[in-house]
Amino acid sequence: MRLALVGSADRARYLQDQASPGVTVDARPPLGGPETIESMVDEYAYIPGVLDVVRASEAEGFDAVITGCFGDPGIDAARELVRIPVLAPGETSMVVAAMLGHSFSIVTVLDSVVRPLKKLAQNVGVAGKLASVRVIGVPVMAVRTERERVYPLAVAACRRVVEEDDADVIVMGCGSMSFYAAELSAEVGVPVINPLLTSLRAAEMLIGSGLTHSKRAYPVPPKIAGYAARA
Amino acid sequence: MRLALVGSADRARYLQDQASPGVTVDARPPLGGPETIESMVDEYAYIPGVLDVVRASEAEGFDAVITGCFGDPGIDAARELVRIPVLAPGETSMVVAAMLGHSFSIVTVLDSVVRPLKKLAQNVGVAGKLASVRVIGVPVMAVRTERERVYPLAVAACRRVVEEDDADVIVMGCGSMSFYAAELSAEVGVPVINPLLTSLRAAEMLIGSGLTHSKRAYPVPPKIAGYAARA
Amino acid sequence: MRLALVGSADRARYLQDQASPGVTVDARPPLGGPETIESMVDEYAYIPGVLDVVRASEAEGFDAVITGCFGDPGIDAARELVRIPVLAPGETSMVVAAMLGHSFSIVTVLDSVVRPLKKLAQNVGVAGKLASVRVIGVPVMAVRTERERVYPLAVAACRRVVEEDDADVIVMGCGSMSFYAAELSAEVGVPVINPLLTSLRAAEMLIGSGLTHSKRAYPVPPKIAGYAARA
Amino acid sequence: MRLALVGSADRARYLQDQASPGVTVDARPPLGGPETIESMVDEYAYIPGVLDVVRASEAEGFDAVITGCFGDPGIDAARELVRIPVLAPGETSMVVAAMLGHSFSIVTVLDSVVRPLKKLAQNVGVAGKLASVRVIGVPVMAVRTERERVYPLAVAACRRVVEEDDADVIVMGCGSMSFYAAELSAEVGVPVINPLLTSLRAAEMLIGSGLTHSKRAYPVPPKIAGYAARA
Amino acid sequence: MRLALVGSADRARYLQDQASPGVTVDARPPLGGPETIESMVDEYAYIPGVLDVVRASEAEGFDAVITGCFGDPGIDAARELVRIPVLAPGETSMVVAAMLGHSFSIVTVLDSVVRPLKKLAQNVGVAGKLASVRVIGVPVMAVRTERERVYPLAVAACRRVVEEDDADVIVMGCGSMSFYAAELSAEVGVPVINPLLTSLRAAEMLIGSGLTHSKRAYPVPPKIAGYAARA
Amino acid sequence: MRLALVGSADRARYLQDQASPGVTVDARPPLGGPETIESMVDEYAYIPGVLDVVRASEAEGFDAVITGCFGDPGIDAARELVRIPVLAPGETSMVVAAMLGHSFSIVTVLDSVVRPLKKLAQNVGVAGKLASVRVIGVPVMAVRTERERVYPLAVAACRRVVEEDDADVIVMGCGSMSFYAAELSAEVGVPVINPLLTSLRAAEMLIGSGLTHSKRAYPVPPKIAGYAARA
Repeated sequence: MRLALVGSADRARYLQDQASPGVTVDARPPLGGPETIESMVDEYAYIPGVLDVVRASEAEGFDAVITGCFGDPGIDAARELVRIPVLAPGETSMVVAAMLGHSFSIVTVLDSVVRPLKKLAQNVGVAGKLASVRVIGVPVMAVRTERERVYPLAVAACRRVVEEDDADVIVMGCGSMSFYAAELSAEVGVPVINPLLTSLRAAEMLIGSGLTHSKRAYPVPPKIAGYAARA
Repeated sequence: MRLALVGSADRARYLQDQASPGVTVDARPPLGGPETIESMVDEYAYIPGVLDVVRASEAEGFDAVITGCFGDPGIDAARELVRIPVLAPGETSMVVAAMLGHSFSIVTVLDSVVRPLKKLAQNVGVAGKLASVRVIGVPVMAVRTERERVYPLAVAACRRVVEEDDADVIVMGCGSMSFYAAELSAEVGVPVINPLLTSLRAAEMLIGSGLTHSKRAYPVPPKIAGYAARA
Repeated sequence: MRLALVGSADRARYLQDQASPGVTVDARPPLGGPETIESMVDEYAYIPGVLDVVRASEAEGFDAVITGCFGDPGIDAARELVRIPVLAPGETSMVVAAMLGHSFSIVTVLDSVVRPLKKLAQNVGVAGKLASVRVIGVPVMAVRTERERVYPLAVAACRRVVEEDDADVIVMGCGSMSFYAAELSAEVGVPVINPLLTSLRAAEMLIGSGLTHSKRAYPVPPKIAGYAARA
Repeated sequence: MRLALVGSADRARYLQDQASPGVTVDARPPLGGPETIESMVDEYAYIPGVLDVVRASEAEGFDAVITGCFGDPGIDAARELVRIPVLAPGETSMVVAAMLGHSFSIVTVLDSVVRPLKKLAQNVGVAGKLASVRVIGVPVMAVRTERERVYPLAVAACRRVVEEDDADVIVMGCGSMSFYAAELSAEVGVPVINPLLTSLRAAEMLIGSGLTHSKRAYPVPPKIAGYAARA
Repeated sequence: MRLALVGSADRARYLQDQASPGVTVDARPPLGGPETIESMVDEYAYIPGVLDVVRASEAEGFDAVITGCFGDPGIDAARELVRIPVLAPGETSMVVAAMLGHSFSIVTVLDSVVRPLKKLAQNVGVAGKLASVRVIGVPVMAVRTERERVYPLAVAACRRVVEEDDADVIVMGCGSMSFYAAELSAEVGVPVINPLLTSLRAAEMLIGSGLTHSKRAYPVPPKIAGYAARA
Repeated sequence: MRLALVGSADRARYLQDQASPGVTVDARPPLGGPETIESMVDEYAYIPGVLDVVRASEAEGFDAVITGCFGDPGIDAARELVRIPVLAPGETSMVVAAMLGHSFSIVTVLDSVVRPLKKLAQNVGVAGKLASVRVIGVPVMAVRTERERVYPLAVAACRRVVEEDDADVIVMGCGSMSFYAAELSAEVGVPVINPLLTSLRAAEMLIGSGLTHSKRAYPVPPKIAGYAARA
């Protein structure tokens, strides 16, 4: 089972270490987008690179692709383009959260992504279980490079969503916060979902179940279907 | 009052003819995107051009921008980038439809845009009044160039949404179908909303009311805010 | 373009000053209802006068009518009676608010109108975006006559809906508060919708778009249709 | 236990025959409204008479009032005015229907009341269980005077809501159709709710439980509270 | 009119004292379940006893059965088994609450039943009016045996749901709290629903209206229908 | 990784054949319940056996339990009792379906389980994506023993949910229909979810992600917590 990760070699190595026997994870970094995603402007700038990687991954023979940003930018277009499963970390984390409790909250980086994540929950179809989205108030880069300063902010936000918002489950709302999940769960006492790791496991689950997204839901774009028809 | 239209000179001329006294409408065609938008792949490919036009329009001193595709691609990022009103034809048409009846339907081109338009209605916040989305089954280009063949298909779809789906109001779900609206309304007997014309009028309404989108809803992207702070 | 306002000569004069070139606004005060509307009892007592004005306005050749109370009393019956657009300040303000942000709050006068306004939001179809309804705790008359005392209460309420209820946009939930909107917006930093002014602009928008309410949604009452048929 | 019915002596006599031992039902016909209610125009014209009866009934010492039209016109204002229970046939029928099955449909007279009844279901809070509203297509007066012609139309509509709309329970959506309920239920095989009779029983239930509407929900109108305070 | 109560002789005696003339209430205690119900584990353990009582009650000729726990355990299966009305205290209390105000809260015993009661409100179809579920934090047994200690906790919880959660009506969310309802209502100033008493009255209402649950909603189980068919 | 299946040795063997390397699946048949589950009466009769198996499985050291009926009977109580993941086939299938398309339908056995499955979808939190529940009209036993007769009925139902109900994804709504899934998917052209296989994969996913249900959502029952505290 060969999986492509839209992301850095570092992250692919992390996932490779976690992967089940017989599963390989290769990095396919997207070209040309922003280094971190903190607004809708960033999201759209990131999409062309994602779509190129997704398409190339199917052509290369990968069994599934995992996209790399929690906001799931371009996921619908990616699924229009290919037939292999495209795992979206945000969507995957939220549906798993819906299995583990009656309500979940997302803890993420900055105010500027709160509204987009609420919209994402609505599009995924689980907004009825979303208790809240709270931020720690630091940019993505700080999550990566200043763990000592940032981790306590994450603990505080996680406690608030449990105590004030009645969340049963917490979702790390940023790919870079994935690496905080296990420690936070031990500290706060509720499941904390690691979007990267859970996307890896969900990829194994879908492939192992013989499932991929429905092409009724994500049809081949007419212009591409047309070209094919002519060829 | 100076309005920029993300679109062709032809369309700007059409709107100029309709505009209130003292209002000018200038075309600002987006660069580099697809000629028509019939899938999410098309939508994302169209966005960079839209964002460039929106940003440049504010810099040029326009009072508002009207984006040119019914699917409202990139509208949230566009509003992050500027403070002048950005009129989205899909959103505008749907909220006006909500004022005119208890339910409305969208009549659009191809199956491939049905799901995105349902999501759009949900994001706009009026999905509770959306009776249905029906298609006429032709590509956008045919709407523009084969009116004689296509118009009867539009009549048939409009009749169905009224008779079978209980729609009080119909929204033309494609910029190029704007030009069918008046004739269809006369034929079918319910209001048929012309997204282009209604967006023009809504731009006049917002400017005349001293209103624009809330920057709490569409904050300046952190990376841009940061640059500004440093400058 | 000739507009009738269900309300006082003072208000009509205010709107006339704001109106676009070529638009006239005439006052048509309703007879026999209460001077201010602060309960459902008041609303129903106000309706007969509204309906008379609406009917007479169509007969007089007006192009649209603007009703004068934010609670939109009798609007559905008014639309049953005529074919010209009937602009409802509450409905109009809420759909415009839905265009400007992800959530909006209503700031109004007294507890007694909170529940009716929540119902109104639900009927308009935008309740999913309604963050809250908060009151300033003074009767309508005080809004008109004690601006110095009342305005600071309005500022406080507006700050709370932004800071505690996460409102992107504020709607003045009382016709008499319309005159506070511009100053409040400058002070609080989010769009504050003036129901009277926005209704005027929306009337211009609908007429300019060739639109009015759907008679499928607001059919001619059977008794009237019957009389007509017999005549 | 003394109950007032907003309606004719005939209907009060019917309810008196059904009433539990020790319960009296007196007719209090509303003055000045239309004879039948088939539009929102009719509803509003009917309200002043209802409010007068409700107020007078409390003053006369009645233990509860039953309003007489399925659309529940003026019910919120009525409850603002008094402290005794005000039974609304539409609301009462719908909440009882919600107890008897997973979904219910309303069968009523004319298209012109369909939208108002859907709104009513939403306001009552049980719209999630409303399967459909279907009409028999005759005016109220024909329901009363042409039972032979009309009853088969009611049977046909009841069959459709069960077979096509998946209704578990049927509600007669017009006071005058109350008298068809028992026979229809026997014929169609699902519970058919008689709004008049069920309102009588619900009045007995509320009084027997020591319950009435919450004055937090229906506060005394400020103008009346004010007069009282001054008196 | 003969009613069976799934519960103790004490409770039946209480209801008998309240019952209308001509109504008898007999206790039918369920066998083998837990003495109090404070978790889903308790609920399921209680169900076999309930179903036995319900079935036997119909066989004995009772006109209706009132089940005895606010969580309504097994109510859907009970209705599959019989044709006489099965009154569920939770469901009944919530639909009556929906008639008395725009929002209601449930005040109950322990955190462990909060989620099940929220689910119950959703299944009943009135979750849109549920303002909150709050607990007093004592086990059911203490409600019964330590009224002096527990009652003030109930007062405090009732004040909070009114002041903080905007509840118009309060529902006692535990059969044993029924006996606090009247005193709490007098103290807090909003209607407080007594689930036992209200279920008794609702039983009288349904029988008096000739109504019972729809067998379309609660069909005879195929295995039982099959046995019958073969017999 | 050791998994317990609440079900027959045959089914455990089927899952063992599918399981990933290093995963063992052992059958733990529930005692005393009905052989098939076709009503709420059946569901409740099945629960005690399920709860015993779940508890014993944790005690035996299993890493997770998969319950065996699509209706997920007793799942909330099961999660109250243990800390290891309890995989519910209905819930699991529906959240996976939500990942694969915009809408899904359930194809199941008999009318008597339609309403319970709709409730289940609502409780899982994905009812917004549920297009329909359709039945093939045969008892569970026939699904197992008369595949030749039953399979074409399943094909017909699957075609209808795609063509008439707009389902992107189909869920087999009965454990015994799991074995039809792969063939149906090939025939109908959309993903068809096999609840048993998908539950196995989801168990691997949760264990591999270090996740289990939140004890905030499913607290230890007070009576058990109490015993523990005393011990």
